[in-house]
Amino acid sequence: MSNQHSAIGLFDSGIGGLSVLKQFVRFLPGENFIYLGDTARVPYGNKSRQTVIEYSKQCTNFLLNQDVKLIVVACNTASSVALDVVQEMSSVPVIGMITPAARAAILATQNSKIGIIGTRATVTSRAHQDEIHSLAGDREIEVFAKSCPLFVPLVEEGMLHHNVTRQIAEEYLGEFEAHGIDTLVLGCTHYPLLRQLIGEILPNVELIDPGELAAIKAIRLLAENGLLADDAKIIGNQPNADFYVTDIPDTFFDIANIFLGFPVRKPQKVDLE
Amino acid sequence: MSNQHSAIGLFDSGIGGLSVLKQFVRFLPGENFIYLGDTARVPYGNKSRQTVIEYSKQCTNFLLNQDVKLIVVACNTASSVALDVVQEMSSVPVIGMITPAARAAILATQNSKIGIIGTRATVTSRAHQDEIHSLAGDREIEVFAKSCPLFVPLVEEGMLHHNVTRQIAEEYLGEFEAHGIDTLVLGCTHYPLLRQLIGEILPNVELIDPGELAAIKAIRLLAENGLLADDAKIIGNQPNADFYVTDIPDTFFDIANIFLGFPVRKPQKVDLE
Repeated sequence: MSNQHSAIGLFDSGIGGLSVLKQFVRFLPGENFIYLGDTARVPYGNKSRQTVIEYSKQCTNFLLNQDVKLIVVACNTASSVALDVVQEMSSVPVIGMITPAARAAILATQNSKIGIIGTRATVTSRAHQDEIHSLAGDREIEVFAKSCPLFVPLVEEGMLHHNVTRQIAEEYLGEFEAHGIDTLVLGCTHYPLLRQLIGEILPNVELIDPGELAAIKAIRLLAENGLLADDAKIIGNQPNADFYVTDIPDTFFDIANIFLGFPVRKPQKVDLE
Repeated sequence: MSNQHSAIGLFDSGIGGLSVLKQFVRFLPGENFIYLGDTARVPYGNKSRQTVIEYSKQCTNFLLNQDVKLIVVACNTASSVALDVVQEMSSVPVIGMITPAARAAILATQNSKIGIIGTRATVTSRAHQDEIHSLAGDREIEVFAKSCPLFVPLVEEGMLHHNVTRQIAEEYLGEFEAHGIDTLVLGCTHYPLLRQLIGEILPNVELIDPGELAAIKAIRLLAENGLLADDAKIIGNQPNADFYVTDIPDTFFDIANIFLGFPVRKPQKVDLE
């Protein structure tokens, strides 16, 4: 049975969800976190809907067995495809990446033109587009979506400010200027790491980081349920986070450091079923 | 008597506090806001401690008379000098700019070297420095502070990406690279508008926006007191905010638009006493 002192559980297909964890740590410094990365089966984006649902259920079960008080589906693909199923099987509240970002984009846009960038799978799923239109009701909003497949490997190589990354970004993002968007959803866990670069290329566009908005949603949800941990006395820079992965890639610590900016504990390898 | 539906009140010496309002609107879209800018007596930064306290008391009284449920001292100078007095006279919770930023900086820094930029008055007051050392307890943290007086007029002229602003910023911020800081507090309401530019000059430094952290603090405070407004149905891009000023400068709407990115209602002129 989870309580105020229980951990917040996040799962992702791999390491990218650490950008979501970073936002949770920033806004909820008093919490304990359990991060599960399904690194043995990453990425989810090119797998069938049924498989992503199956894997997401296994991740959810693992986190529920750790008595977490909240589950964060930190993967945009899993959020697009499996959120309903996770919510149904979970005894604790569940937060995905799509709705918080869609809402923030609707609230931010002044000219009702929103851009979405994500992996091919996320863009093709139309999850953001559908959620924006559904939430916006009668308000007419134009949505322009574009997949940016090279951003993930470039981020994982740590080339956040590299000239090649800038060239690729200019190519990917150029069309948004023509569309005249004023708001852009960074719809993949890797993209917030390119925020500075994307901001240079689209200087007058508001950038929406789904992890940030999901963390805000979490504060509200936990507070309403009396489950917020006290954070008044926290002064350390090493958040209380445990890492579980289904495979330990050689590059885990390097990539984790790029994403989090603080050293991580050794991850534990687990089997999901 | 304030309740869940009451407004959140913010006051500032002038228009700069609108950058704080922007963060509150972003994270608390369901709330009503009352913004008071003491534009007839701006800036507070070069006035005596006693005068700033007196003006802050008048601003607080004005907001309390509007039955606000929370008071945000959006001015860094007033937060440095008058927060205790405001808290003492207020029947509702009060949030200032210094503590949320100091805490966030302590949590963010990995090498325990924090930079502060602010107006001359704020830097000289040592409010951030003292609060960081006080909160950090036994943890040793080096703090480097620098006033950046030209940032305020450059921002108010809308020159956010201008080459002159970049030159000035490079001159102001150069020394922080030598100090090796990894975290920088944007300790004046105008500076978050230069976030992109500052990020280009100090690419590996975490930038702390006090308004953002104050908004996070507000969510928690309001939730704990059962005073959060429901925001589930909000889809508009025109936040519910009323503006009061002690003088209406010709440039009000231009500057407000730079700060907020959404059109503001006509401000009402009020006399404080």
